[in-house]
Amino acid sequence: MTSRYEQAGVSIDAGLKAVSLMKEAINKTHDSNVLNGVGAFGGLFSLGDKLKNITQPTLIASTDGVGTKVILAAALNQYNTIGHDIVNHCLNDMLCAGENIQPLFFLDYVASSKLRPRMIAETVTGMAEACQASGLALLGGETAEMPGVYQPTEFDVVGTIVGLIDQKAIYPRPTMQVGDLLLGLPSSGPHTNGYSLIRHIFRYTPLHAEYEEIGLLGEALLAPHRAYLPELTALKSAGVVVQAIAHITGGGLVENVPRALYDFDDLTVRIDRKSWPTPPLFELIQHKGKVDNMEMLRVFNCGIGMVIIIPANQAELALTTVDDGRIIGQVIQGKEIEWV
Amino acid sequence: MTSRYEQAGVSIDAGLKAVSLMKEAINKTHDSNVLNGVGAFGGLFSLGDKLKNITQPTLIASTDGVGTKVILAAALNQYNTIGHDIVNHCLNDMLCAGENIQPLFFLDYVASSKLRPRMIAETVTGMAEACQASGLALLGGETAEMPGVYQPTEFDVVGTIVGLIDQKAIYPRPTMQVGDLLLGLPSSGPHTNGYSLIRHIFRYTPLHAEYEEIGLLGEALLAPHRAYLPELTALKSAGVVVQAIAHITGGGLVENVPRALYDFDDLTVRIDRKSWPTPPLFELIQHKGKVDNMEMLRVFNCGIGMVIIIPANQAELALTTVDDGRIIGQVIQGKEIEWV
Repeated sequence: MTSRYEQAGVSIDAGLKAVSLMKEAINKTHDSNVLNGVGAFGGLFSLGDKLKNITQPTLIASTDGVGTKVILAAALNQYNTIGHDIVNHCLNDMLCAGENIQPLFFLDYVASSKLRPRMIAETVTGMAEACQASGLALLGGETAEMPGVYQPTEFDVVGTIVGLIDQKAIYPRPTMQVGDLLLGLPSSGPHTNGYSLIRHIFRYTPLHAEYEEIGLLGEALLAPHRAYLPELTALKSAGVVVQAIAHITGGGLVENVPRALYDFDDLTVRIDRKSWPTPPLFELIQHKGKVDNMEMLRVFNCGIGMVIIIPANQAELALTTVDDGRIIGQVIQGKEIEWV
Repeated sequence: MTSRYEQAGVSIDAGLKAVSLMKEAINKTHDSNVLNGVGAFGGLFSLGDKLKNITQPTLIASTDGVGTKVILAAALNQYNTIGHDIVNHCLNDMLCAGENIQPLFFLDYVASSKLRPRMIAETVTGMAEACQASGLALLGGETAEMPGVYQPTEFDVVGTIVGLIDQKAIYPRPTMQVGDLLLGLPSSGPHTNGYSLIRHIFRYTPLHAEYEEIGLLGEALLAPHRAYLPELTALKSAGVVVQAIAHITGGGLVENVPRALYDFDDLTVRIDRKSWPTPPLFELIQHKGKVDNMEMLRVFNCGIGMVIIIPANQAELALTTVDDGRIIGQVIQGKEIEWV
């Protein structure tokens, strides 16, 4: 016997099953700041001790998706990494705002035309794992069955992150100047950008195709977005001064590095394109898609997922602290980004 | 000349046009708490004066969608009300958490297979209007073009709300007791719940069908979700004590009223189904869909969008303060909700 509501395409039981599967992973992200079991209509997060030593408490918040990388996950029937993608994408964006940011919590939305418990549970479990790794509480979320809205096997994932920062610690530091260096940290793949173009380029290539340089195409493309919190924490512990940070997302280095300098109208950057090797996956994308160099740099991170701007005298300390970082350019006078 | 990225189905220009159209409406929601033009990778909201007189500052946050009401909006090519829906749905949920909640900010996500500037601009403008009406800053958002994920003309809308509350003010009040009354506030329609069933029931009925009782079907179904902040503010100003609040969403009165009593294992409610008239739209839905009474009450709000639990001696004051409210039941001893 099914209710009329189920006949209309909404299965309440499937949703409940998924919720129970992921509950354990979510609970691991909760500490005493999460007022669990209190308040039934929203997540409650006590600021309590978080406000200590902050003179101008400011919340930072960002909502985002992972783009059409969800299509690859659906095609491969692998969802856990998408959970890591959405959390780490939001986290890295947030970390660009300033010094000593305290990650507070994350909320998620997962929707599909038909709820499949394993899909929801894997996605949310991946989110919970990524939240736990970065000290974020997975505070709440919504799982929506939307018959008729999504393509049959597709789904979408949306995340919102909230953190706390002292207003006086917002980047860029006023000491930013010509000669500061760009410390580039490697990406783990295209992260969450450029997937519509990637899918277009590989539209006739099966995801299980194997390439010598990258292994299985599908797996290489699904590599989860790396979180840069450990590197930033290490740099801070080592005493490295950070002037500003750019998370390299849609728009690539071309658009995102200048965003980090927004307060300085007369400063731009010179980037040495030969200072880091292009990872094989990006070479394959460029070759197969006949994409020109500049569009590669506008659409993809091309191997650099985060750029940290540091004073020139900090380079040695920074490079010994973050062993896979490299100097990829410098701050210069001017308006337009320069490529050498 | 189109770039490869555009050939893959992602039009950057359409997105930029939409962003400029809605910018004006968004700016109206910003006051000095929003650190505009600062921080390029996330929205920044200064807590500053908001923390005054709060002993245990606690954030409340919730993420939600509007369900398949988006399909009706797309079919009617009317998007402004969906913006009101998502904000007011999140707002009403948040208001159930406790007394003196300060709405802080809202973030949105709008996605579709193909960005249509008018659709995005109308939706986000609607959100901005609803935010402004309730003192929320529209702090950030993401507009995502997701070719292949959504059905051709469909879209989805996700919202996240964040507010501030003093932990000691979280509902329910410890003074809740047998004999407290349920003040029901009328809904403006199905709000954002039950639309999959509604679309199933009216699957052979054109949206421009006209009924004597409700007018044009499509317009009646698209009526925006009402915000209950003005009523709650009026009750507070009048000195009415509120014990707990239930926002009547998915699960109807059956599931949502008990959620408001979660702290009291031995209390439940008796609801007098005849204490309020069923609005004609719900009668039409029930008649046409042959939905039984109990399922109506589980899927739809059936005319009551919010239930405010008040001490019996506050009823007169409450009813003169909120002129369209009515007493629909009371708190009783027991486990199972009773219907009379």
